[in-house]
Amino acid sequence: MINESYKNMLGAKSVIRELSEYATARGKEIGYENVFDFSLGNPSVEVPEEFTKEMIRLLQTENTMTLHGYTPSLGNPLYKENIAKSLNERFGMNYGPEHIFPTTGAAGAIAHALRAVTKEGDELITFAPYFPEYGPYVTGAGVKLSVVPADTKTFQINFDAFEEMMNEKVMAVLINTPNNPSGVAYSSETLTKLSKVLTEKSKQYGHTIYLISDEPYREIVFKGADAPYVSKFYDNTLSCYSFSKSLSLPGERIGYVAVNPSCDGAEYIVPMCGQISRGTGHNCPPSIIQQAVAKVCGMTSDLSVYEINMNIIYDTLQDLGFTVVKPGGTFYIMPKALEESSIEFCKKAKDYDLIFVPADGFGAPGYFRMAYCIDTEKVERAMVRLRQFVKEVYGGK
Amino acid sequence: MINESYKNMLGAKSVIRELSEYATARGKEIGYENVFDFSLGNPSVEVPEEFTKEMIRLLQTENTMTLHGYTPSLGNPLYKENIAKSLNERFGMNYGPEHIFPTTGAAGAIAHALRAVTKEGDELITFAPYFPEYGPYVTGAGVKLSVVPADTKTFQINFDAFEEMMNEKVMAVLINTPNNPSGVAYSSETLTKLSKVLTEKSKQYGHTIYLISDEPYREIVFKGADAPYVSKFYDNTLSCYSFSKSLSLPGERIGYVAVNPSCDGAEYIVPMCGQISRGTGHNCPPSIIQQAVAKVCGMTSDLSVYEINMNIIYDTLQDLGFTVVKPGGTFYIMPKALEESSIEFCKKAKDYDLIFVPADGFGAPGYFRMAYCIDTEKVERAMVRLRQFVKEVYGGK
Repeated sequence: MINESYKNMLGAKSVIRELSEYATARGKEIGYENVFDFSLGNPSVEVPEEFTKEMIRLLQTENTMTLHGYTPSLGNPLYKENIAKSLNERFGMNYGPEHIFPTTGAAGAIAHALRAVTKEGDELITFAPYFPEYGPYVTGAGVKLSVVPADTKTFQINFDAFEEMMNEKVMAVLINTPNNPSGVAYSSETLTKLSKVLTEKSKQYGHTIYLISDEPYREIVFKGADAPYVSKFYDNTLSCYSFSKSLSLPGERIGYVAVNPSCDGAEYIVPMCGQISRGTGHNCPPSIIQQAVAKVCGMTSDLSVYEINMNIIYDTLQDLGFTVVKPGGTFYIMPKALEESSIEFCKKAKDYDLIFVPADGFGAPGYFRMAYCIDTEKVERAMVRLRQFVKEVYGGK
Repeated sequence: MINESYKNMLGAKSVIRELSEYATARGKEIGYENVFDFSLGNPSVEVPEEFTKEMIRLLQTENTMTLHGYTPSLGNPLYKENIAKSLNERFGMNYGPEHIFPTTGAAGAIAHALRAVTKEGDELITFAPYFPEYGPYVTGAGVKLSVVPADTKTFQINFDAFEEMMNEKVMAVLINTPNNPSGVAYSSETLTKLSKVLTEKSKQYGHTIYLISDEPYREIVFKGADAPYVSKFYDNTLSCYSFSKSLSLPGERIGYVAVNPSCDGAEYIVPMCGQISRGTGHNCPPSIIQQAVAKVCGMTSDLSVYEINMNIIYDTLQDLGFTVVKPGGTFYIMPKALEESSIEFCKKAKDYDLIFVPADGFGAPGYFRMAYCIDTEKVERAMVRLRQFVKEVYGGK
């Protein structure tokens, strides 16, 4: 018989997807260059040439059966080794290949990390604003997701609310820094404080509380931002990474879980991820993609456009009197709407072909998200339109 | 806290993997050409040149952001369309692209199909001999796996035992034809009878019983075998396919679920698979692999070596007096051991560097599996060794 709970999920269409589909349809009407589509977080920069060259080299020179054969169930050894090396060099860690589990992007990484350190009926805490897909990820594992309300002043962590919500059932805490949708990176001060709370509460409850760190935007960090490596602050950290943004490879579904070598049960977690894979039918990311990424895992696409765009948008928003926290990274910014309902605000902006996403679904009602992974030329034209919109609708300057 | 049930799974090492590791180690000692390793079902034929060429063409000519960008969450349109076309032409079906859901191999396909038509606490029936990974696949979804004992005469379905085990909790039945490990293909007669039972029982219990058909060996069928397309016999069929064997791409994790357009809820099942993916962190197979396979989904590697090997092995086994059913496809054969315990038999064979897998784990105690995806020259030498082994240990001719 058909599973009713999955069937019932079909009704709820994603707001982001709906807006992005609207933008595409509208683009067909008036020309896509005239639609200022800030809805989707799709990388807008080229894949590094080295990746393409390595793919072609593999295809031209390797034995096809080795190249496309089964990888070991815990992943391609070179991929694991090179990622461990790269993380160690950059962040002063001491990962071995045995601490790296290859996954299908950050979604796959979180799905595995989560199941490794929780069981059905447990609770997991995350912090607003947060990526709405955490809902299905967490409930898909039978775990309850609790969301700490945002500290809207800084979009760091609201520690008072967090400590109040902590309880014995919480087995894991999930953070995302630099953050989608706010663009804010958690500071050293925030992470130090978070580590202290988690250490104390682990002791008090008599069980380890793991920190699952979702960090696909780790390489998109702006000048002057304090965006340290999370796992340095708390040993019981599982870092979930994706090459979607850093190498512009979102469709190739390639990432990993990196298990802090000093965490409790460090020796079990990667092999456990292998077992988790069997139940979800995942069985490792594709062989050729693991092999090619192994060679380029220390580099990134040219990500500079995101900072250029951010500065243009941030300055305009400031000038127009928006309340907004300056992003430390990502390609998102999350200003406060100019009226109470961000849904109404975004509807009105749509009439000016400005496509913004209300942040209600991210746990930040009254705010809206702009994804600025688009050409700078278009961002500049969008700012002219934004000025016009604010002036005509809200009487701004 | 670490999930104890996944941790406890770590102890049980796969027999197949253990034997294959032994074979590799032994190969280093005495030369791999002297180890007759029939343990692993890893394709031994080249990937079609057309696949490699198409991959290189995509890498050399496509815009990297389109090529490696997110695919739509229900899959690449061309991939879906071409697969539907190919199935329609070959099997007289009427699939549209909306009935095809791309997955990471057959494992991913089964994981999705299963969740779409069962819920926690339901029961699923499969038939011995069966692929042991069905255990984690099914229990991973919180569903009980019941196994109908084998009809050891033909390795078709033991219908008496099946009907006795049927009950109201059974929401799906899982078959694998051509079969791993027996190599036997279910005949038209078997599938007609199976369809009749499923139709009657669906009516009696007042709910649809879905047939999940696991068919990665569908293209490896031998002369004279009656190996029809399962979905033609029963409308409520979800076909789970992988290109691992037909295109020799096991490491690239590419396959699909094909939903029979006449099945109950046909319009919901593919979108539901999209929802299931969100919870398991799967989110579509890699973009470039979908695009390349779209172009070659109607062709196969040169699979003829498997039939040549099968005939050599079957004839030798017959000549040596083994009880064995002739395979209709795959690259497996499953003879009866020459003593009661197939574990003991395989241990003794190991002393002759013949690596066979006891079929106890496949639900066929007393039998053993040989995977003959190896060079014919080696198969021929292995038969000489097998004769020697049987003569010296069991007094055969």
